[in-house]
Amino acid sequence: MSQDPFEQTIQALLALGGQRVWSLMVTLFGDLAQAEGQGIDGPVLSIVMSEMAIRPEAVRVALHRLRNDGWIASEKRGRTRRHTLTAKSRAESAAASARIYAPPDEPDGDWQLVILEDSGGASHDGMAKRGFAPLLPRVYLGAAQCHPPQDALVLPGDHAPDWLRQQIAPKVLQDEYRALQDVLMTAEKRLGSAAGLSAQQQAVLRCLIVHNWRRIVLRHPALPRKLLPRDWAGHSCHILVNRLLTRFPRPALGDIVAT
Amino acid sequence: MSQDPFEQTIQALLALGGQRVWSLMVTLFGDLAQAEGQGIDGPVLSIVMSEMAIRPEAVRVALHRLRNDGWIASEKRGRTRRHTLTAKSRAESAAASARIYAPPDEPDGDWQLVILEDSGGASHDGMAKRGFAPLLPRVYLGAAQCHPPQDALVLPGDHAPDWLRQQIAPKVLQDEYRALQDVLMTAEKRLGSAAGLSAQQQAVLRCLIVHNWRRIVLRHPALPRKLLPRDWAGHSCHILVNRLLTRFPRPALGDIVAT
Repeated sequence: MSQDPFEQTIQALLALGGQRVWSLMVTLFGDLAQAEGQGIDGPVLSIVMSEMAIRPEAVRVALHRLRNDGWIASEKRGRTRRHTLTAKSRAESAAASARIYAPPDEPDGDWQLVILEDSGGASHDGMAKRGFAPLLPRVYLGAAQCHPPQDALVLPGDHAPDWLRQQIAPKVLQDEYRALQDVLMTAEKRLGSAAGLSAQQQAVLRCLIVHNWRRIVLRHPALPRKLLPRDWAGHSCHILVNRLLTRFPRPALGDIVAT
Repeated sequence: MSQDPFEQTIQALLALGGQRVWSLMVTLFGDLAQAEGQGIDGPVLSIVMSEMAIRPEAVRVALHRLRNDGWIASEKRGRTRRHTLTAKSRAESAAASARIYAPPDEPDGDWQLVILEDSGGASHDGMAKRGFAPLLPRVYLGAAQCHPPQDALVLPGDHAPDWLRQQIAPKVLQDEYRALQDVLMTAEKRLGSAAGLSAQQQAVLRCLIVHNWRRIVLRHPALPRKLLPRDWAGHSCHILVNRLLTRFPRPALGDIVAT
């Protein structure tokens, strides 16, 4: 089994860690059934989750949690249950999708440096929500279109020296991107020689790619490339994710059937 | 004696502290005899120094030190000695004069913020020599025309919030300026009703005003007013110094005679 390119890829993606069942399901619904009116039937969900070697009991526990959190609504339809995103989780998924599925080569803009009056007040979290990454205590960097706190010192950015790009890299999870980049590069090569994947394999592959990508990309502010290292692994990942998702498009839910 | 406005002013200026004899003499030569070919004869120097209640022995020790340092050259002329600045000290005095005697209301320019790659390398002293004042570790402010170290992050300054102006104030000796401002304001009022001063009194008054002013102004970088507090005591001092020096012009050295 370890000789199969698909299986090897799935194992490598799962080995990146942080794959909680409920969180994988958030990714799956976001990728496969985000549109209004779409849902995933119980049997289809079971097939996809079992392709990831997740036991039915773990799927039930995760579904229970997601229903309690108001993320998933489940509805009986004859002999099966259909699971759908709620209005709230659909909106949140859509907001996240703007960044997860963004084309990798959109022109991006200028940046700004912001200095806060003191280290109290606006926290790292508060600044992260506004789109700023910390450089030094009280000193933050962000895209030009972000809104800094009122009364901060705001300076439009110009040339960013290389050391600045290197210093900001760990704040935007350079190491995590490097690990993902390795897996995606290998996956692209392996899957190049793979025979056509089944619909459920395609759903699983997409889910794990999107999941590992969004786990990193949503954890740091989007900074203009002018601020990032020239060999920025996050950008390589973005290109690889985009290429793989294009090559393995969303399967039709109806094509996912027990084998 | 304490009722005499001139004496009261001199005492207040001397009470500001930091009046080493050799340093007062550096000020005196810079104010009275900076031009090429100018010098101060021993008897004239004695008269002026004794007006400041400095003993002849202290004057001799200071002259000795300044000669050893290459600041003063002394030359016998008949029965008197004439003391002059050397080429080196004349050049240094001229450089300092550009700032000491600058008109207070010259339009001043924009500013820049500089962030260094790390806290090693360029020191506070090194940055001060380039004209930058420290705001935070690694973060400096300076006039737009200053030259930052190569490869620093350099951002042109725009609007400076009030808190920034307040935070930079102690770095440019706000308290010292406030103390001088009080003395100069009182001096201006007192001397308004003073009868005409003798040439030596005028020399002493100028020397002590310039001395206390240069002791502060040369110890911090010149920052554009846009960066400084709106009620900046340094600017009030500058205006007062300028007004007092205009009102009490340099006396002719030949007018300074024993009384």
